[in-house]
Amino acid sequence: MAEEQNSEHSEDNDIGDSTVLVGSKNVMSYVLACVTLFNKGATEVEIKARGRLISRAVDVAEITRNRFIQDVDVSDIIIGTTTVKTDKGSDLNVSTIEITLSK
Amino acid sequence: MAEEQNSEHSEDNDIGDSTVLVGSKNVMSYVLACVTLFNKGATEVEIKARGRLISRAVDVAEITRNRFIQDVDVSDIIIGTTTVKTDKGSDLNVSTIEITLSK
Repeated sequence: MAEEQNSEHSEDNDIGDSTVLVGSKNVMSYVLACVTLFNKGATEVEIKARGRLISRAVDVAEITRNRFIQDVDVSDIIIGTTTVKTDKGSDLNVSTIEITLSK
Repeated sequence: MAEEQNSEHSEDNDIGDSTVLVGSKNVMSYVLACVTLFNKGATEVEIKARGRLISRAVDVAEITRNRFIQDVDVSDIIIGTTTVKTDKGSDLNVSTIEITLSK
């Protein structure tokens, strides 16, 4: 997929080739990012989020395929757990989701 | 699955045979519900949630399989959209998730 994954933890809504990382912006920003990627010729877009933003990632997938690009399907959903360092230095487990939309 | 689905919109954390509906309680309440169902002999537990509670449902699945019941896998995840009537009578689209844990 993307060759450059080191910007993964930034709040950018577009990392690498066909990945949309959901952050704290409006849902529609990420929907627009997905629609743009498909319109540019992507056949697969991966929507990633963690923690509370997981529900927003599901919203992004649902709005993209129901309202904007009808011939797109959810081809895969993976959930997982990552460990994040808190400000105080302790470890915190955070849930993650990766939703793959395919044409 | 469950014969009686009419209590689906209540905040109960256990609807029917092997379904856990995630509501506004603590994450651990729902983890306990899953663990109890598996310990009672269930081979499949479905975790359902909608809206913002979707991220909590993912937490429930991850905590159950990582910390409590190691031989359980996520066998299926389905996302969707339902329409909910608001207090003012208008329709609101809400995302949903169903995570199936299997032994």
